[in-house]
Amino acid sequence: MADLRGGIDLGGTKIQAAVIDGRGEAVGEARRPTPTSGGPEDVAAAMAEALRESAQTAGVETKDLIGVGVGSPGDADEKTGVVSGARNLPGWEGSFPLAKNLSDALGTEVKVGNDVQVATEAEFHLGAGREFQSLIGVFWGTGVGGGLILDGKPWLGRGAAAEIGHVVVKRGGAKCPCGRKGCLEAYAGRSAMEAEARRQHEEGHKTDLFKLMEKHGKPRLTSGIWERALDHGDHLAEQLIERAVEALGTGIASAVNLLDPEAVILGGGLGIRFGERLMDPLCEEMGKHLFVDERPPAIRVASLGDLGGAIGASLLVSR
Amino acid sequence: MADLRGGIDLGGTKIQAAVIDGRGEAVGEARRPTPTSGGPEDVAAAMAEALRESAQTAGVETKDLIGVGVGSPGDADEKTGVVSGARNLPGWEGSFPLAKNLSDALGTEVKVGNDVQVATEAEFHLGAGREFQSLIGVFWGTGVGGGLILDGKPWLGRGAAAEIGHVVVKRGGAKCPCGRKGCLEAYAGRSAMEAEARRQHEEGHKTDLFKLMEKHGKPRLTSGIWERALDHGDHLAEQLIERAVEALGTGIASAVNLLDPEAVILGGGLGIRFGERLMDPLCEEMGKHLFVDERPPAIRVASLGDLGGAIGASLLVSR
Repeated sequence: MADLRGGIDLGGTKIQAAVIDGRGEAVGEARRPTPTSGGPEDVAAAMAEALRESAQTAGVETKDLIGVGVGSPGDADEKTGVVSGARNLPGWEGSFPLAKNLSDALGTEVKVGNDVQVATEAEFHLGAGREFQSLIGVFWGTGVGGGLILDGKPWLGRGAAAEIGHVVVKRGGAKCPCGRKGCLEAYAGRSAMEAEARRQHEEGHKTDLFKLMEKHGKPRLTSGIWERALDHGDHLAEQLIERAVEALGTGIASAVNLLDPEAVILGGGLGIRFGERLMDPLCEEMGKHLFVDERPPAIRVASLGDLGGAIGASLLVSR
Repeated sequence: MADLRGGIDLGGTKIQAAVIDGRGEAVGEARRPTPTSGGPEDVAAAMAEALRESAQTAGVETKDLIGVGVGSPGDADEKTGVVSGARNLPGWEGSFPLAKNLSDALGTEVKVGNDVQVATEAEFHLGAGREFQSLIGVFWGTGVGGGLILDGKPWLGRGAAAEIGHVVVKRGGAKCPCGRKGCLEAYAGRSAMEAEARRQHEEGHKTDLFKLMEKHGKPRLTSGIWERALDHGDHLAEQLIERAVEALGTGIASAVNLLDPEAVILGGGLGIRFGERLMDPLCEEMGKHLFVDERPPAIRVASLGDLGGAIGASLLVSR
């Protein structure tokens, strides 16, 4: 029991906490909804509770963990433990000393890192990227996030590298949730896809997407709803998924032309759900834009599933 | 005299050779046209002659150089010294042991590397990039080439990284000389710009570009001809340069969103000629697509000029 760490993946919808052993296996886990009102303190309190619960299921106290890592959205400063501008969390436009707050609550050292970067590192050390020394992690979900491993080490640039969702795929193209035009995320992010589906539905295009959403009691078009719609042969869903895959193939090819990595790891809610199903069209779209097309990188679907973020976060502790 | 190296920049138009001292200064130089017929042996013979001539002006024999570096187009394998698929050189579609051939001719060790990567390294070690630890070199000329320095070291990927000219700026866009669609080079490469100017001219658009080319006895639209046309207020030239700058800003922003480097170094024939003049519109176009737009990277024009390639090539020797 001496070698246990905590990991918390802080998402816009849910908080996933886990206690991880020395081999990277989860020995306890818990999940809570992310508070939708209040402020950073409320989110931190929910995170602490989730970690305590996962420690309980593992039969330890949080103070006995050798540390806790947090994968966070926004600008997470690994050195200071401060998280700023996490705009999809309530009242978190400014800065909040998340590591300090959680460390006081849990009685052990806490480190913070970028959520997508730590998920990429988890896949690199323990998941689908184990056999490679350089890779791009592409997390296809609500947005499109990225992480980079170059020569066996994370590449963070000046702290904000790997924004593959904001690689431009079409100059002057669709409006992105970030406010700019033509980003990969403007075509492939689930938020942007839902907005486009709603727009076309309101214009009179037929689709069962929103009926399925209501029927299954979901507040938004989840990856499961998109899958059901595809299974029903819903034309608009097919069209928008195809458009997303075209954009993903283009953006990933641009990144590969720039970095020439050994592998691309496809994760995220949509990536994990559709990775195998859409692998062929994705490779085809990517192939259209690869400069060295006779030896494309390996493309793998992330293998750690929903726990990848929390496992990756726990790896921050040993740094 | 003990510390002299040779450097050869092998271009599609000219061969630039130089003898470089320990401080990175050229103490002898010579230039020859690249043979337009024959095969790799003929090109190598012209390279050897150019280097011998530059050694003569430096007052040394080539066998007394501690080595010679070559910056080459195509696929230059640093380990084996073989150059393959240099399609803008005569009869060089296959592989040729360039280092071995030149080493026999010159009586000293010869190393080969990618032309744009060595020019980037020259700017990093001795030129406009000296104060930075991470940078993207963008060489805007006949094509658009790139080089990467990350954490103070070249990043080559699996040997073909930094192809910023083939980052896609517009999915489904203009045809690129590489055969794909929408690449940065399809809008900003001098070859592509000349082809577009010719197409529009033949369609009846007015321009003095080709008159200026003939008047100055040039076989193509050189960077000097583009500059003259801009100075005359030639509308088509202005339009095509503006389109190139938009594409450059977009492609560079995508690369910055992915790598978050400290600096971008703009070189190449067009880059050096227009860098200062077009810096403001370039930064503006880039700013439209930067994800972290409050702290853009430094943008500098390459400072080693025409000799940068040969100086960078000479740095291969000490590796």
